[in-house]
Amino acid sequence: MNRHSIVKGKLICVALNDSEQLSAMQQEFSEAPYKAPPTQPVLYFKPHNTWNTQAATIDWPSTGGPLYVGASLAVVVATKCTRVSAEQALEYVAGFSILHDFSLQEKSYYRPDIKGKCLDGTAPLGAKVTPIDQVSDLSALSVITEVNGELASEFPLSQMQRSVPELISSISYIMTLEPGDVIAVGFKGERILLNKGDKVCSAIAGVTELSNQVAG
Amino acid sequence: MNRHSIVKGKLICVALNDSEQLSAMQQEFSEAPYKAPPTQPVLYFKPHNTWNTQAATIDWPSTGGPLYVGASLAVVVATKCTRVSAEQALEYVAGFSILHDFSLQEKSYYRPDIKGKCLDGTAPLGAKVTPIDQVSDLSALSVITEVNGELASEFPLSQMQRSVPELISSISYIMTLEPGDVIAVGFKGERILLNKGDKVCSAIAGVTELSNQVAG
Repeated sequence: MNRHSIVKGKLICVALNDSEQLSAMQQEFSEAPYKAPPTQPVLYFKPHNTWNTQAATIDWPSTGGPLYVGASLAVVVATKCTRVSAEQALEYVAGFSILHDFSLQEKSYYRPDIKGKCLDGTAPLGAKVTPIDQVSDLSALSVITEVNGELASEFPLSQMQRSVPELISSISYIMTLEPGDVIAVGFKGERILLNKGDKVCSAIAGVTELSNQVAG
Repeated sequence: MNRHSIVKGKLICVALNDSEQLSAMQQEFSEAPYKAPPTQPVLYFKPHNTWNTQAATIDWPSTGGPLYVGASLAVVVATKCTRVSAEQALEYVAGFSILHDFSLQEKSYYRPDIKGKCLDGTAPLGAKVTPIDQVSDLSALSVITEVNGELASEFPLSQMQRSVPELISSISYIMTLEPGDVIAVGFKGERILLNKGDKVCSAIAGVTELSNQVAG
């Protein structure tokens, strides 16, 4: 495993933050056991053993797969914050990068499972953090992912159900955010199914790029 | 928040490892959406912001509670291990301590929720790690918890559905375990409901003790 130097404390991912996916799931939300859509962001952790770097090769799962990837804008926390408002949330942000979340198939979107999300080395983060003052309008940006040079996914950040400031605020009410914490704020609902040897490259214009190859 | 020096990487807790609780939940397991008992250990993380120490005061939840506590034997990993057998699992263990897991009420036992489990400072760990060669028979031990000096819970480790070696093996197939990772291997199914100001003291004979007070 290769370790980057950006994440210091915790790497938090936000699931179910694609408004189109949420719309399509209205029927499922009405069923047991929840019988209602989630009222709070659905979060999961990518722990220490998952942290990885730009250009790292991603192991094929020892369980045999299938393996999926999603890409997200990654928000890097600059300053400790607890229970901050959405209006003030961006004051605690150092800047932005990109995260790839490689995982097994999701069986439930409500609470992503540990087994599928915590494979070694499955959370590479871009090498560069673009300072927040160099990014003017997040809602105008898109996360674009190519697999083997062909467009596989495009996720406009304007399509996020909850905005970056809203998420920082909500999460900071659940747990204190600390310098070097990273939040992957939103993935396109439909993840990308991968094959062995695939090259996955994601970019957010003006922010950064991230490329990884799945082991052959 | 007070930080101890034991956990370096990740703090993993095992839910649903009380065989009596599992027996009592057979009906619930047959219902949607899972319709079967879990076949793997049910895990959750206590992230960086939760880590705390012996004698630390635990904040009352800003959401108003109710607040519960469970106590568990804490296994401290000595050596990096991936996909180890249960027979070899204890070779990777440095020793044992106790963890208190303070949390909000569990709505679902299948996948403990982030909001309820990740309150700041809610995972104090005993000050001492007892080396594994000083502990002869784990299955003969019990985790005993007193609240304000009265017995509140007793959990014999022999009542664990999965043993310590089985858990280390299973978890090491999901994610690599690294030096300084800690696994809280089992809590009594019924957690202890707390009031403001309660003093919580847990002990495992011959291993260690842990005491914390809830803020008044």
